[in-house]
Amino acid sequence: MAKISIIGAGSWGTALAWMLNRNGHEVTIWSIIPAEVEMLKNDREHKDKLPGVHLPEQITITGDLKQAVMDREVLVLAVPSVYTRSTAHSMSIYVSEGQRIVNVAKGIEEKTFFTLSDIVEEEIPQADVAVLSGPSHAEEVGRGLPTTCVIGAHTKKTAEYLQNIFMNEVFRVYTSPDMLGIELGGALKNVIALAAGIADGLGYGDNTKAALITRGMTEIARLGMKMGGKLETFSGLSGIGDLIVTCASKHSRNRRAGYLIGQGYTMQAAMDEVKMVVEGVYSAKAAVGLAQKYQVEMPIIEQVNQVLFAGKPAAEAVRDLMIRDKKIEHSDLPWE
Amino acid sequence: MAKISIIGAGSWGTALAWMLNRNGHEVTIWSIIPAEVEMLKNDREHKDKLPGVHLPEQITITGDLKQAVMDREVLVLAVPSVYTRSTAHSMSIYVSEGQRIVNVAKGIEEKTFFTLSDIVEEEIPQADVAVLSGPSHAEEVGRGLPTTCVIGAHTKKTAEYLQNIFMNEVFRVYTSPDMLGIELGGALKNVIALAAGIADGLGYGDNTKAALITRGMTEIARLGMKMGGKLETFSGLSGIGDLIVTCASKHSRNRRAGYLIGQGYTMQAAMDEVKMVVEGVYSAKAAVGLAQKYQVEMPIIEQVNQVLFAGKPAAEAVRDLMIRDKKIEHSDLPWE
Repeated sequence: MAKISIIGAGSWGTALAWMLNRNGHEVTIWSIIPAEVEMLKNDREHKDKLPGVHLPEQITITGDLKQAVMDREVLVLAVPSVYTRSTAHSMSIYVSEGQRIVNVAKGIEEKTFFTLSDIVEEEIPQADVAVLSGPSHAEEVGRGLPTTCVIGAHTKKTAEYLQNIFMNEVFRVYTSPDMLGIELGGALKNVIALAAGIADGLGYGDNTKAALITRGMTEIARLGMKMGGKLETFSGLSGIGDLIVTCASKHSRNRRAGYLIGQGYTMQAAMDEVKMVVEGVYSAKAAVGLAQKYQVEMPIIEQVNQVLFAGKPAAEAVRDLMIRDKKIEHSDLPWE
Repeated sequence: MAKISIIGAGSWGTALAWMLNRNGHEVTIWSIIPAEVEMLKNDREHKDKLPGVHLPEQITITGDLKQAVMDREVLVLAVPSVYTRSTAHSMSIYVSEGQRIVNVAKGIEEKTFFTLSDIVEEEIPQADVAVLSGPSHAEEVGRGLPTTCVIGAHTKKTAEYLQNIFMNEVFRVYTSPDMLGIELGGALKNVIALAAGIADGLGYGDNTKAALITRGMTEIARLGMKMGGKLETFSGLSGIGDLIVTCASKHSRNRRAGYLIGQGYTMQAAMDEVKMVVEGVYSAKAAVGLAQKYQVEMPIIEQVNQVLFAGKPAAEAVRDLMIRDKKIEHSDLPWE
């Protein structure tokens, strides 16, 4: 059994702490917010972000980063993507050579186009960085419902070590060497979830949504493969799998914000209504930047940007997607 | 504008007739059932299978197969898969050299493992056979909701000709040379829809369903690629796209039958309750046969067969899927 610290006590960090404790590991949760530390210590439950999931006494709660980082076999980095760099920077002095860090957040840094593992590796060059991703609502993992994920790592050894740490009879973990593909799929899916929400808000049906999900992942894969990711990964759990679960969920903030925009709200009004950070709005900008840099056509993400930032009516954006040039589905396949 | 006949007046055939007429073509619908011909002629609506969609007077309704087939630029074959061979056989004498036939049904012949286009080509060797597939509930197409599909054909010329015939501002058509991949994805997705329904019936969440959809298409692709289909196709509209729409739909018979089985019904009781042919039950058998013939591992389809035909409890089947050997997500990708 391993000593593991979860850095960040959001819904996903809390669910993973609960699960890793159940797997028999010695688990610590760290939060930067004193009130959160107190709540978790006193109530043994994250009442705001993961209500109903009891955290047993053997899970240590701390606000001391040094205590959380040192002498741990695995660090699970579970802070929101906007705090990944600052948190990694603060952790760095306590991290030992080869210490394993699993990042579980999703995002792309807007200025650098870095993935989150790129950021962690820049801030903590001595760490062995891996990622965990897949279709995994924290609420369902916290209820023990069957869930699958992928661990991406640089070496097979690290991937298999982490697979053993996380896997149990309701949490199936696959391994993959394609960290970049895993992270790009996870970050960019939120833009497509916005688009799917917009279609729902316009009153369109399951055909339209399935089209946006499928063609959305096709354009993410087109970009991701130019950047070095693998097609298989975008067709896998961290790619299309995670996108499916996000677009199906009534709880997804991205889908919900899109729904309101489809109903006629402006982007700002939709974000005010949802009252939380809508990651897809930021990822949408990064995606357009990447599309330009890598010279890749991303028509859906382009239209989402037009709706979000140029006030284009949503129905007009869908119409423009439908009547584009007549295309081959995948232009690389040969004809007879 | 082209002369087109729809062979078969089910919900999909009727929706396509309505849409092709709207595109300005000269459309005829043929049905083998005299009462159906009368209903369509008198009511200008298929009250059972596509209520609410009005068929304008310029659409010809006929029970005469010779009249329907001769002198048409395009024949859309829209009969249920169990009638594909017999219908193609009857049509054959009227079909001219190079006449275009677009099959829109899905299935695999259990004895021969033939796809439906294989069957049509065997029965009508003089025809130029193509396929149309994708996430397309007939009810939504009949309401003009935005929908996307793929035309698969042997030549780019035929694919582009048909793309022009079908495409309009709410029905976007892509082309593809991978007819085999399109047909395998369409036929085998029904088995995975059964599995997704079973998971819903067991009370599992979106994580489980997304896992079954993603890993289900991964195993279909593994088989399909060994048979000669392309990975891109299984990641496309006729593969994962169609599977998503089927698993999301409360109207899918396959999903509904699976739901009942997840709730404890036997296969027979579930089929009696659904009161219609549940194609996935037949495709499940064909899939296992293909997996054996091509020596491919298909764990989800194997467990669906165990539940359907060997009385295995559904929860046990899910558990066995979760605790299988620890795996690499896509075993072909290289490590550092």
